[in-house]
Amino acid sequence: MHQLREPYLLTPGPLTTSLATKSAMLRDWGSWDSDFNQLTAAICRRLLTVAHAEASHVCVPLQGSGTYAVEAALATLLPRDGKALVLMNGAYGQRMARILEYLGRNFMPLDMGDYLPPLPDQVEAMLDADPGITHVAVVHCETSSGILNPLEAIAEITQRQGRRLLVDAMSAFGALPIDARELPFDGLVASANKCFEGVPGFGFALLRRDALEQCQGNSHSLSLDLYDQWTAMERSGQWRFTPPTHVVAAFASALEQHEAEGGVAGRLARYARNKEVLVEGMRAMGFHTLLADRWLSPIIVTFHAPGHLHFDFNLFYRLIKQRGFIIYPGKLTEVDSFRIGCIGQLFEEQMRGVLTAIRAVLDEMGIPDGSPR
Amino acid sequence: MHQLREPYLLTPGPLTTSLATKSAMLRDWGSWDSDFNQLTAAICRRLLTVAHAEASHVCVPLQGSGTYAVEAALATLLPRDGKALVLMNGAYGQRMARILEYLGRNFMPLDMGDYLPPLPDQVEAMLDADPGITHVAVVHCETSSGILNPLEAIAEITQRQGRRLLVDAMSAFGALPIDARELPFDGLVASANKCFEGVPGFGFALLRRDALEQCQGNSHSLSLDLYDQWTAMERSGQWRFTPPTHVVAAFASALEQHEAEGGVAGRLARYARNKEVLVEGMRAMGFHTLLADRWLSPIIVTFHAPGHLHFDFNLFYRLIKQRGFIIYPGKLTEVDSFRIGCIGQLFEEQMRGVLTAIRAVLDEMGIPDGSPR
Ligand SMILES: Cc1ncc(COP(=O)(O)O)c(C=O)c1O
Ligand SMILES: Cc1ncc(COP(=O)(O)O)c(C=O)c1O
Repeated sequence: MHQLREPYLLTPGPLTTSLATKSAMLRDWGSWDSDFNQLTAAICRRLLTVAHAEASHVCVPLQGSGTYAVEAALATLLPRDGKALVLMNGAYGQRMARILEYLGRNFMPLDMGDYLPPLPDQVEAMLDADPGITHVAVVHCETSSGILNPLEAIAEITQRQGRRLLVDAMSAFGALPIDARELPFDGLVASANKCFEGVPGFGFALLRRDALEQCQGNSHSLSLDLYDQWTAMERSGQWRFTPPTHVVAAFASALEQHEAEGGVAGRLARYARNKEVLVEGMRAMGFHTLLADRWLSPIIVTFHAPGHLHFDFNLFYRLIKQRGFIIYPGKLTEVDSFRIGCIGQLFEEQMRGVLTAIRAVLDEMGIPDGSPR
Repeated sequence: MHQLREPYLLTPGPLTTSLATKSAMLRDWGSWDSDFNQLTAAICRRLLTVAHAEASHVCVPLQGSGTYAVEAALATLLPRDGKALVLMNGAYGQRMARILEYLGRNFMPLDMGDYLPPLPDQVEAMLDADPGITHVAVVHCETSSGILNPLEAIAEITQRQGRRLLVDAMSAFGALPIDARELPFDGLVASANKCFEGVPGFGFALLRRDALEQCQGNSHSLSLDLYDQWTAMERSGQWRFTPPTHVVAAFASALEQHEAEGGVAGRLARYARNKEVLVEGMRAMGFHTLLADRWLSPIIVTFHAPGHLHFDFNLFYRLIKQRGFIIYPGKLTEVDSFRIGCIGQLFEEQMRGVLTAIRAVLDEMGIPDGSPR
């Protein structure tokens, strides 16, 4: 099959980005130069504005992938004698626990398995029972299943209990509204290559200024010390170590496009429409979503793999790729599944395109229907 | 002054890169996809070949800046009860010591100040005196001054003494010959955006396979655990966490161009010529190099700032930038200096260009001669 363009990425990042974003990388920047420092400062200002956090928080960018920013935020915010309650319902919650094991910091997991939301009452009971817990760590959209966790309720309880909140909003920030004036958090982490539609290479954390001021000496790592990165940047306007200049320039362009699309509201509308078209079309072919509608996010949707004997994910993937779309494998421990992302430079046209491709591939594989039981 | 193109970067990275390298970023890659995994595998194979290390070492790439790869290599290779002798003669040697302080690992510095090379005899005496030292850490080209440290002699002593060597070859590998069959090292670290002329976003380590096999559990950090990154990559061909896909694609292109230029020999010849033109031209204007000829590297050269009353580095920098060249500030604690890099897509034409610009700027500033005492 002839391929007209590179495949669309229906994955949770890296994403299909706009040509404008990629073209911003066709220039070399001196990382010590004031032109570049201005770019960094503008990005940080804009990210704070998106979260309505200008008055309360600072934005600290960090080289590396999103996981680095999560590790850095945990290490910097959690005092060495602190204790975290880690809410887990998928790979990214589990990863926070794994990071804390590396750090040798005290934590308690609340593990809901593959796809159940953490119940606010249960969180409250655990905080009641253990006054030693200083921080609650939660994933906003747990990308493993696509579930949208009840962030507001958890934030409210955490504050009421006098504890501090750290949010992994990697796959949500930029498309789901976050308002720091109403949602009390000490740290919120995301990365360039998710809903802001940049290319991968750095992450960032929005950190409550008065909390961060207390964090000198907490970090286990020079590279991942957000306190040190912040103070150095305040002083010089520069990243401490060589920044991914081209990726930063691409992100600055991506942020302009985000704003032009109507910011969070505009982006959410497009992604929500993508999800609607996708879920409706998949259900019409007999596929079942892992989650009930109320937990579905407009970020990524998990579908049960067809139960049919002929179904083989690797072949399914390859045949769909030949038709110009890259989908994503499942990340569940118990159920056979696959995922389709709604984020990136994707519009109704691409969502209808992948549905057509899936229908054709099922026919080719001799599978009459998506998810017969 | 009208600027025809973006300024040339006469800095030690980020560099001026070729259009081919940047253009390789005009495509989005799925990080889970086999096409991308092949790109990563090809890069690692090629880097091992450049160092003649295919038989003995493995290549582990790591998201983040070069410092991350240095921290990761120290943390992964040095056992928790090990002890490092850290050879320092500039900011990057000092940074290794600072990393070890964060890690809480035992080390001993040999600090030569700003620009003296570590003497092999002194290294030998220190190893003799302290059998508890398990590793020696050295910077190949200390970019702070541009000094080329006596790597072969230090490697020879380290091996003779039964200790293990870790080399920060960030600013040297790709242009200065490294032959793992003759130079005994357990780890050698560099990054994408130095002499291979890629764009910044990841580093990599060449690690002796039989040493690395013993390193499970050493790292203090999930993100910076090279053992974990290596084993995961062996298993799946994938980076554990989202790789900077565009930066990786650019590096693959940069490596092809490196090979086409004649590999290390070809690149060294160009950089050496750049350095020659630069140093000769600067001396003709009365500037003095910080180092004597035998310690000068073809990577970056430090010059004493003119002693003239009218000299002001920030103005000097700005005026040269207006003429299309970005130079680099000094990084010495004691002497007023500045640096000019010879690496990146720079040729004799650009080196003559910066000399002309410097002459014109000195005239404009009313400084008759580079370095009158
Ligand atoms: C919720 C969440 N947290 C963390 C990560 C890890 O990010 P990275 O792969 O960039 O390290 C991801 C990546 O998809 C994510 O979705
Ligand atoms: C010798 C050496 N080591 C380490 C580094 C740090 O690299 P990065 O700035 O990418 O963290 C550099 C950067 O110039 C270097 O030259």
